[in-house]
Amino acid sequence: MLAVLTGGTGGAKLIQGLSLETDPSELVIVCNTGDDFVFHGLHISPDIDTITYTLAGVADTGRGWGIKDDTFAALEWLGKYGGETWFKLGDRDLATHITRTQMLKQGLTLTQVTEKIRSALGVRSTILPMSNDKGKTKIQTPKGEISFQEYFVKQHWSGEVTGVSYAGVERSRPAPGVVEAIREARAVIVCPSNPVTSIGPILAVPGIRSALKQTRAPVIAVSPIIQGLPVSGPADRLMAAMGMEVSAFGVAKAYADFLDLFVIAPEDGDQQSRIEAIGVKSVGKSIRMDSLDDKRRLTRELLAFL
Amino acid sequence: MLAVLTGGTGGAKLIQGLSLETDPSELVIVCNTGDDFVFHGLHISPDIDTITYTLAGVADTGRGWGIKDDTFAALEWLGKYGGETWFKLGDRDLATHITRTQMLKQGLTLTQVTEKIRSALGVRSTILPMSNDKGKTKIQTPKGEISFQEYFVKQHWSGEVTGVSYAGVERSRPAPGVVEAIREARAVIVCPSNPVTSIGPILAVPGIRSALKQTRAPVIAVSPIIQGLPVSGPADRLMAAMGMEVSAFGVAKAYADFLDLFVIAPEDGDQQSRIEAIGVKSVGKSIRMDSLDDKRRLTRELLAFL
Repeated sequence: MLAVLTGGTGGAKLIQGLSLETDPSELVIVCNTGDDFVFHGLHISPDIDTITYTLAGVADTGRGWGIKDDTFAALEWLGKYGGETWFKLGDRDLATHITRTQMLKQGLTLTQVTEKIRSALGVRSTILPMSNDKGKTKIQTPKGEISFQEYFVKQHWSGEVTGVSYAGVERSRPAPGVVEAIREARAVIVCPSNPVTSIGPILAVPGIRSALKQTRAPVIAVSPIIQGLPVSGPADRLMAAMGMEVSAFGVAKAYADFLDLFVIAPEDGDQQSRIEAIGVKSVGKSIRMDSLDDKRRLTRELLAFL
Repeated sequence: MLAVLTGGTGGAKLIQGLSLETDPSELVIVCNTGDDFVFHGLHISPDIDTITYTLAGVADTGRGWGIKDDTFAALEWLGKYGGETWFKLGDRDLATHITRTQMLKQGLTLTQVTEKIRSALGVRSTILPMSNDKGKTKIQTPKGEISFQEYFVKQHWSGEVTGVSYAGVERSRPAPGVVEAIREARAVIVCPSNPVTSIGPILAVPGIRSALKQTRAPVIAVSPIIQGLPVSGPADRLMAAMGMEVSAFGVAKAYADFLDLFVIAPEDGDQQSRIEAIGVKSVGKSIRMDSLDDKRRLTRELLAFL
């Protein structure tokens, strides 16, 4: 069994590769839920959805979010009623949020809801929320604190960020199966997701980081940064706001206490000695995943290390 | 100002005529909410929606429910998740239910929500729920009690009905404006809607029937029954279950205590003397409204009586 820690976009690329190059039923995928939010009264779990849709083969992999060929008729009408439309709710996607909201209201946990949805879509991998408790990623800006989705989607990650916090995370517990998966896996893979707002919230759930330190399984991460720039998204700005060096080294440093191997871009070969100096092995591989072939090749290379 | 009492389908036809043959801003339309129900966690008000969509010019008037050219992508996906799909939620229609549910949750009354939705869709008539309190139309069958929507939509009004009740209606109050509209109108029009499950629940709200008896305005109703058969829907079965005679006379008798004029089909001319005998004037007019021309003509004939 392979345990995989992930956010949405970047992680979904590697997970698509993993699902094609391994037995998908052997994957236990722990998703960031720090970005979960309520929109029009509906509980939305963006990263769980992206991963579930990816594994179900229904994701819009070009756009990086939502369901392939989805339509937006309901959203357009929500706009007619004066409702907010900045989060692009597709009609098919909406069914996921309606179902989740309804099941949570009936008393099911997010773990149980996630299991029902992935099973209904024929996904064979296990998908786990990092926690069933509330922990919210908050972005501090000079104009005040906003949710991650407001920063990321509504504001298109423009504007200055002065800090990031995981509100309430100290009182949260790992969802059932998360710590067990990390402990019992033959390897743990940390996806090339944003270290501050995708992997950061997972590591902040009490018990997860210590499980990563204690597991006998090798922990392998893929860098989301190439030559000081994120492959996608605002990781550079958020890392800077957190006082991290915006580089592959900066990510390695954030994971150094539990990381065994860090896969970086060949262009960042000059950082290898610094990374090794903090006790993490590193290897240069082509880590851009623009095509399905890239995703499969990188996955095969990762699996070859195990 | 004209006060109009209505259910969905049949009433919507006359209301479309009224909106074209009078100043729509002079109409105050009191809608049955006894059929309101919760589906997938969303608050649905089928009759309010049908009337609102009709007046906004976006109704699917052929089908008699929902929005013209609506799509059903979300519903299909709700089905994938094992959800119920017997109530045909269109994608655009869904935006109405999501908005209503969210606003009710925020503490707005159904009156306020209805006002916001009709205003957003450019409807100039006032649309009022009969009540902001809960009153639920229940259908008694040999297999137990079911909601009106389960009987009407899920079971396509098949199966034996032994009774109909308006659960909780005795504790409900008329919504703001309903009694005032009946009192102050220059005429009250009772639409050719089902007397048991559309007009019946409105009359059962304490205070509405007495307002109809007391108003100085003439109260005019159009028969939903022609030659012992309903123009549409299960009125015959439900009237029979309530021990009512299934005829224009049977409807007149149910309204006799407040009704001034009953418009019946010319084919039912033989019932005029019986209707007059219980103190209600009646007149024979072509009351089928298959075309827009029919709706406009009948409206003009009704207005000519005022």
